[in-house]
Amino acid sequence: MPRYTAPVKDMQFILHDMLKATDTGIPGYSDLDREFTAAILEEAGKLAEGVLAPLNAVGDTEGCRLENGVVYTPTGFKDAFEQLKEGGWNGLDLPEEYGGQNLPYVVGTAVGEVFVSANMAFNMYQGLTHGAINAILAAASDELKQTYLPKMISMEWTGTMNLTEPHCGTDLGLIRTKADPQDDGSYKITGQKIFISAGDHDMADNVIHLVLAKAPGGGAGTKGISLFIVPKIMVNEDGSLGARNGVSVGKIEEKMGIHGNATCVMNYDEATGYLVGDLHKGLRAMFVMMNEARLGVGLQGYAQAEAAYQNAVDYARDRLQGRAVTGVENPDGNADPLIVHPDIRRMLMDQKSFVEGARAFTFWGAHLIDRAHRLGDKDAEGLISLLTPVIKGFQTDVGFAMTVQAQQVYGGHGYIEEQGMSQFARDARIAMIYEGANGVQALDLVGRKLAAEGGKPAMAFFEMVKTFIKENEGNEALKEPFLEPLKAASKDLQAAMMYFMQQGMKNPNAALAGSTDFMHMFGHVCLGLMWAMMGKASAQALQDGTSDATFHETKLTTGRYYMARQLPATGMHLARIQSGAEPVMALAAENF
Amino acid sequence: MPRYTAPVKDMQFILHDMLKATDTGIPGYSDLDREFTAAILEEAGKLAEGVLAPLNAVGDTEGCRLENGVVYTPTGFKDAFEQLKEGGWNGLDLPEEYGGQNLPYVVGTAVGEVFVSANMAFNMYQGLTHGAINAILAAASDELKQTYLPKMISMEWTGTMNLTEPHCGTDLGLIRTKADPQDDGSYKITGQKIFISAGDHDMADNVIHLVLAKAPGGGAGTKGISLFIVPKIMVNEDGSLGARNGVSVGKIEEKMGIHGNATCVMNYDEATGYLVGDLHKGLRAMFVMMNEARLGVGLQGYAQAEAAYQNAVDYARDRLQGRAVTGVENPDGNADPLIVHPDIRRMLMDQKSFVEGARAFTFWGAHLIDRAHRLGDKDAEGLISLLTPVIKGFQTDVGFAMTVQAQQVYGGHGYIEEQGMSQFARDARIAMIYEGANGVQALDLVGRKLAAEGGKPAMAFFEMVKTFIKENEGNEALKEPFLEPLKAASKDLQAAMMYFMQQGMKNPNAALAGSTDFMHMFGHVCLGLMWAMMGKASAQALQDGTSDATFHETKLTTGRYYMARQLPATGMHLARIQSGAEPVMALAAENF
Repeated sequence: MPRYTAPVKDMQFILHDMLKATDTGIPGYSDLDREFTAAILEEAGKLAEGVLAPLNAVGDTEGCRLENGVVYTPTGFKDAFEQLKEGGWNGLDLPEEYGGQNLPYVVGTAVGEVFVSANMAFNMYQGLTHGAINAILAAASDELKQTYLPKMISMEWTGTMNLTEPHCGTDLGLIRTKADPQDDGSYKITGQKIFISAGDHDMADNVIHLVLAKAPGGGAGTKGISLFIVPKIMVNEDGSLGARNGVSVGKIEEKMGIHGNATCVMNYDEATGYLVGDLHKGLRAMFVMMNEARLGVGLQGYAQAEAAYQNAVDYARDRLQGRAVTGVENPDGNADPLIVHPDIRRMLMDQKSFVEGARAFTFWGAHLIDRAHRLGDKDAEGLISLLTPVIKGFQTDVGFAMTVQAQQVYGGHGYIEEQGMSQFARDARIAMIYEGANGVQALDLVGRKLAAEGGKPAMAFFEMVKTFIKENEGNEALKEPFLEPLKAASKDLQAAMMYFMQQGMKNPNAALAGSTDFMHMFGHVCLGLMWAMMGKASAQALQDGTSDATFHETKLTTGRYYMARQLPATGMHLARIQSGAEPVMALAAENF
Repeated sequence: MPRYTAPVKDMQFILHDMLKATDTGIPGYSDLDREFTAAILEEAGKLAEGVLAPLNAVGDTEGCRLENGVVYTPTGFKDAFEQLKEGGWNGLDLPEEYGGQNLPYVVGTAVGEVFVSANMAFNMYQGLTHGAINAILAAASDELKQTYLPKMISMEWTGTMNLTEPHCGTDLGLIRTKADPQDDGSYKITGQKIFISAGDHDMADNVIHLVLAKAPGGGAGTKGISLFIVPKIMVNEDGSLGARNGVSVGKIEEKMGIHGNATCVMNYDEATGYLVGDLHKGLRAMFVMMNEARLGVGLQGYAQAEAAYQNAVDYARDRLQGRAVTGVENPDGNADPLIVHPDIRRMLMDQKSFVEGARAFTFWGAHLIDRAHRLGDKDAEGLISLLTPVIKGFQTDVGFAMTVQAQQVYGGHGYIEEQGMSQFARDARIAMIYEGANGVQALDLVGRKLAAEGGKPAMAFFEMVKTFIKENEGNEALKEPFLEPLKAASKDLQAAMMYFMQQGMKNPNAALAGSTDFMHMFGHVCLGLMWAMMGKASAQALQDGTSDATFHETKLTTGRYYMARQLPATGMHLARIQSGAEPVMALAAENF
């Protein structure tokens, strides 16, 4: 069975050496000293390592089952859920007003990574609840907030997001679920939703569904969509639970992975729903939830890669096979450990340098969200809005590839389910799909975010990279290994953007045909920037005579690897982008 | 349920327009006119489409089961196996002497693709038999040949390959299975083998295991290994079946995919075995089998991508979602089909251009094998030996990635097992691992094949590319879209080889750290060459006034796509390679 150890030291490095959390001036960050975050992360680590990780394979093997309308989760999930609840983990970064602890989002993100690495399918019950809470916080009336938030924050009740229908996923304008207004101000919701993660289960007293539906008078397409709270069990005025609402589970889907999470077909049959936010403006409220959810999914991408990587390293150290080409390294054994072989190291370094870079990028992104929310910093808001599709799309594409690579280190044993490496890949696969398939992220990035605010956030990003390079040019530890590759990659990215601008007006297909390549090159530049920032922090620590020189030297080596081996990808992406729309769009549909 | 249609037209194009089979002068090829190969491929297609493909999901869902020592295959497999047997499909390219039809290997390869695309797990029972037959043909005594080959070629009996043991996969020198010589010239085989594909089943009367074991006196490491035939059931002198041999199935592995194939732990307990070839030279005989098996696995990579691609195209044509950015294309529907979207087309074109290129490469490789075997052409033998790891490693890496991409076209539906897209990815995944994990292919390529015969085959490859470019420079249809990118990519490949030569002596790790990148860039150059050859054939057909202009125009567009979008990858691989061994090898094992 795979093991998992929370990477507390690396998280501390990002929070304190790289982000310098307590110096940021963001409200709430002054409390985030090393001792405080260490205590939280170690506590989360204990729960993850001792309780959640051992249930990961159980969830995969048993899956969820639907019997007489009741969804049962795998053995042990209910107990683990109780422990998560008792620890108050869900409310970590939520308002005190409703029972949360109001810690910065970056702390919730770090804890989230630990839980996701340990057991992604299990963590989704909490993750969806968290997203639903955010949508309610952003758009619902005070009355709805008072009724639902305290019990959702405490996880007595959990939440879901209901967007997809059998005939429509991305194209929400096609939604058929209807909302009929009632005299008491509520609505009757009727329709079918599919792919509802954590749609139902036996771990909480109630499930609060957030449902997109069409109320009369809204017009066609996405304009007519409203957002509703539809509880599984009606809530009485005194907060106690009443009768079952007209909500039922049609079936649980058989999926490639995340078997521990019940992905449900939800049937709404004149179920009572309550409008969240303005009528016919449901997408706006839903998007509040989705942006944060997308960052959370981007986190899943590298969190699964982290768990898979840890086990690949163990295997590569233990498994004796072949001899080092440069001479025997394990003379007492009949073979050397796998880790002596350059191609095994290449795979491990790919994983390590991606995961650590993605972690820094995600924490840095979470810190931008804190900056936006807690300081009202509009520039930070614009920047994280621009980068959200990169975090989601790039990190889940590469994160999945890295789980596959970790599995590859195991050779034939990686293909056997018992080893657990297949599960990491099968679970990670969904992150490329849900919360907007990665092609949709690329479309969002190129078709919308690049041009948002007249291109201001994009320009600000390039300015930031340029400034960082300029300010650190005199730093010899950074110049050649970090700054030069970053400069070259950033130049490629700008050239691609320029190409889009030139082509965009006359031939939008030329930009869109390059959208995924653009998203990936953007991801590499972002991780390159993170590595440069981390390299700077580690070089500084070494100069200051750190007591943990090995950690910082390892950090610098890992960063050099990423810069040398991954950043050259931007040239390939640029060449693809500049090849334009022609061969992509040339074939008639019938000639494929 | 996914559909499958045999790509007969494309195969015919490769065999006749590109390879010009009947003009090659290879014995047996003069019979391969269009009508003949069409008849065979269409017949194979019928069996694949009507019988094998519908069983693919059945095999995945049911898997194999072991009950009281007997292995049962999924419902329908036995009937399908009978039909395969009755059609004589296994003997297609095997010697007439033992009941085969002696057709060229290229024909067996084309038919193999059709069967693998339809049902990879099922086809492996035949594929392993075919490999075992080849090892027996290459090395066994006449007596053994007479005893085993006719029934294996007719598939009354099937075959297996037994190399791996729990503690050793690639490093065969560590094998512990023992062979004790008996007075009658036979051996008693004792040990455990794992991951034995098609290890046992209920579809044939006997299973003939080819087993690597150590007989006394052979010395340490791979030198002491011999190859043995170990039948599941003893064969009497008159050819009838006798008592059970000391061979049993320990268990069937639970795997990520290919559930329809019984991957067995095989226990040998003083089982009677017969030496194949020379004592202590078992690896040589096994490698005969493995080289062809590796080409077959490279075929599996793109064959799964082909099947997945066909379904992704169907889905992209049918599923209505969103509107084309350039204006409504399906005014009668409430949305346009997915295939109007550039990023969906990018994915489909990636798949299409890879699959068709890989098919050409594999058929061309098979034709080199025919050239080597039937003409005794040593240059062809050197070339296919060089390219085998490229066919295996590159095509299975990219083939798997393409099945994942086809699944991605389905969005959330791709993650649901019912749709069948997950199975293509899960099945294709094994091809990157077995018959030598792809890292081992890269090692074989860079550490052995490049320098083989003093580098003659590698030089011959570059010479061939150069000659092709030179001879066709005047062809305007080829020059800019095909020859220029091919030239640039080939230059990158040569630069990488030069780097290896310069570094190799003083720092072998520098070459090995770039081995996988080199294998991939080699793959791109090979597919680029194939596309240039196909482009030439299609341009010629159009010039000759072909009656199927659409096919050839589509071929040229698809080729242009591959050259423009995939060949730029060689620059990235070269940059990675030239970054050398330093960051790859720098970390101590404990610092990962």
